[in-house]
Amino acid sequence: MSLQAVLSQIDQDLPQATDRLLELLRIPSISTDPAYKEACDTAADWLVADLRSLGLKADKRPTPGHPMVVAHTKDDDATDKPHVLFYGHYDVQPVDPLDLWDTPPFEPELQDTPKGKVIRGRGASDDKGQLMTFVEACRAWKAVNGTLPVRISFFFEGEEESGSPSLVPFMRENARELKADIALICDTGLFDENTPAIITMLRGLLGEELTITGPDRDLHSGMYGGLAVNPATVLANVIDRLHDEDGHITVPGFYDDVPELPQDIRAQWEALNFDVKAFLGDVGLSVPAGEKGRTPLEMIWSRPTCEVNGIWGGYTGDGFKTVLPSQAHAKISFRLVGRQDPQKIRESFRDYVRDMLPADCKVAFQGHGASPAAQMSTDNPAFEKARQALSEEWPNPAAYIGCGGSIPIAGYFKNILDMDAMLIGFGKEDDNIHSPNEKYDLRSFHKGIRSWARILAALE
Amino acid sequence: MSLQAVLSQIDQDLPQATDRLLELLRIPSISTDPAYKEACDTAADWLVADLRSLGLKADKRPTPGHPMVVAHTKDDDATDKPHVLFYGHYDVQPVDPLDLWDTPPFEPELQDTPKGKVIRGRGASDDKGQLMTFVEACRAWKAVNGTLPVRISFFFEGEEESGSPSLVPFMRENARELKADIALICDTGLFDENTPAIITMLRGLLGEELTITGPDRDLHSGMYGGLAVNPATVLANVIDRLHDEDGHITVPGFYDDVPELPQDIRAQWEALNFDVKAFLGDVGLSVPAGEKGRTPLEMIWSRPTCEVNGIWGGYTGDGFKTVLPSQAHAKISFRLVGRQDPQKIRESFRDYVRDMLPADCKVAFQGHGASPAAQMSTDNPAFEKARQALSEEWPNPAAYIGCGGSIPIAGYFKNILDMDAMLIGFGKEDDNIHSPNEKYDLRSFHKGIRSWARILAALE
Repeated sequence: MSLQAVLSQIDQDLPQATDRLLELLRIPSISTDPAYKEACDTAADWLVADLRSLGLKADKRPTPGHPMVVAHTKDDDATDKPHVLFYGHYDVQPVDPLDLWDTPPFEPELQDTPKGKVIRGRGASDDKGQLMTFVEACRAWKAVNGTLPVRISFFFEGEEESGSPSLVPFMRENARELKADIALICDTGLFDENTPAIITMLRGLLGEELTITGPDRDLHSGMYGGLAVNPATVLANVIDRLHDEDGHITVPGFYDDVPELPQDIRAQWEALNFDVKAFLGDVGLSVPAGEKGRTPLEMIWSRPTCEVNGIWGGYTGDGFKTVLPSQAHAKISFRLVGRQDPQKIRESFRDYVRDMLPADCKVAFQGHGASPAAQMSTDNPAFEKARQALSEEWPNPAAYIGCGGSIPIAGYFKNILDMDAMLIGFGKEDDNIHSPNEKYDLRSFHKGIRSWARILAALE
Repeated sequence: MSLQAVLSQIDQDLPQATDRLLELLRIPSISTDPAYKEACDTAADWLVADLRSLGLKADKRPTPGHPMVVAHTKDDDATDKPHVLFYGHYDVQPVDPLDLWDTPPFEPELQDTPKGKVIRGRGASDDKGQLMTFVEACRAWKAVNGTLPVRISFFFEGEEESGSPSLVPFMRENARELKADIALICDTGLFDENTPAIITMLRGLLGEELTITGPDRDLHSGMYGGLAVNPATVLANVIDRLHDEDGHITVPGFYDDVPELPQDIRAQWEALNFDVKAFLGDVGLSVPAGEKGRTPLEMIWSRPTCEVNGIWGGYTGDGFKTVLPSQAHAKISFRLVGRQDPQKIRESFRDYVRDMLPADCKVAFQGHGASPAAQMSTDNPAFEKARQALSEEWPNPAAYIGCGGSIPIAGYFKNILDMDAMLIGFGKEDDNIHSPNEKYDLRSFHKGIRSWARILAALE
């Protein structure tokens, strides 16, 4: 089987592939809005039909919400080959505010821009364009070779933009069917326009809300000020003491299960030449403000954090009220890495805060989400094969990178199906996902298809 | 002239004096509610008539809001005597929530309670009952002696409970008429049920609102957390650093104009045996949390403070949002004492905060109120005379005390009329002023009248 022939087929078929994507983009499959329920169904049907046209067994599978689409290569195809599960989502974000769109969100088109051709429309990048890169790679492979190089299952959901309520139950009920050797997820981005990436570490998250209570009611600051404890000041003290002067988090035992970055990953990250000035400059900042002695990429990918997400207490309206508040509140989250145990850190944090409180103050905690970090087993040979394949397609070598946020689907594949996931995508920072004028570079689409063709060849 | 005869007259006339107060209390002179505009007018008329019945020149004086009542002893009365200006207010607080009143607020009555007889009704303590203590003392004096012992002007306003919008313009326009040797204000309380007090120091107030801005929009804490500066954490650091470990305020120069308490005042305060456990216990606290090395009364009366009145930033709704806020805000107020200059402290505070900020953070300030502390010139002999007179009436000696909050009228007399004020009142903590079931102890009313009779005698 010739990869070169497949890549040529992809190049020749790009106009038709683009037309197919435009067709899918015309279906307004907004999952959060009940008015578009039928459109979600239509998008699922469209995918089922398209996958069947590739000779796959494909079905729309009902859920309490929008349907799943599941497809498999036929039993007699490639039975001795590795088995991959490809995940994407066919639902899209709402389009408000509509008046900020330069073209109607569901009348997608190919546009010329100063930076090259783009496919403009809601879902072009997130995630219809991305999922179609994989489907088109399969189509080209099949056209050239009559068969696919590995066993492939497809798993598309229609609720990703509305919290995926049906996903975990569906995965649990269909675990045997969905289990493969490895999952491929195409819902992320390039590191930069010339550098592809595989996300191999995702930070976990621990959310805590605390309420510090001092006096049993709001007090007049003239009558009590200077004598009575002020919970807002106490809260400020607690927050201030959560970091030391070097930006280290002071919660006892916090760093116990935080690994140092392996040398090979460190080298890959250094080679990325991350432009921290540009990254911070985009949001009006200029100076890395995190842990001393760490590179910016470590700060956002491989180091744990403690952030105040919200703070409130006392009088916050217009004007002034000389109240001494009874209570002060904060929402605080920790990004977790390595083998940090969210429950252990939750307990340690709570004990630490309790120990800090002065007389007459008490604290109540409300726990929010708790999920550990995800670390892919890159010693699975599939990772290195995919990284090499990507490196051949793009100007710069591919890197294993981290992701500061959480991508729940990767955790579900690990926890429910005991399967590593390779997060590979071709989106760009300026794709305007979740915003007006969403687009997907035609180059992302084209090279994305070629990338998957190469990865499939490498995994064969 | 015999003080004893006047006191006997007061004792004998108490039932009639109480009836007169009940009559005034029946007039629903709620100043904030336009529906009661006529009632305010009626209350002013009632006072004019009552003062005229004492042989005074009394008039209702229009303002853009509710009228003032101004009265004077006749020109040929006591021209060689000291001249005092007595201030009170005839307007009352609204009565909501009405269903929490055990008896209708404007159907006042004398009630027996386990702690003694009380006059129950809106305004009984704040301020109709208090202002009538002085009027009744004058009535008794006049009944016994045919004349008053000093020259007296009366100045009653009807907007005290709605911010006194007409007060300052009226005082400015009528400064010559209102100027006296000293002002007497009856709108405060006893130190405790057996200990009268004259407030001689009132803390000033400086309000500041600050907004710390980091990134130019709210950020995703997964994407930027650990690298980007968090203004909520910075704000916590700023607030934390405003006090040192001993509870001292760290703003440069803050204590420059803060005097130590004179030895005689310190001795008076020590003799008060202030029950700090009870004071804090009332609001669910037990331990003085203020400046180390200071007594509780110093903390609330004679020491400056820095309090957080409100704090907010980021996501404060239900649930959790892993946002890294662009801004964090606080409302901070300083209680000022001695000769602390509000403007100087405002500038010093702003410079201090600016100097504290890390890279990429900026701060914007909004100034709120700024008023200096008021310190009465207790070397004016009237103070010591009044203190002795009060000490003769009550079980415990009277004390010069402080007031942690501000009482604007005292400052106006000082600043507009260049006149010290003696703040003497007979209210109690449990009078429920501004709340349902307001009352004034009959003992406060009775001994209040006797107190003023003694003070008038002393000032003669």
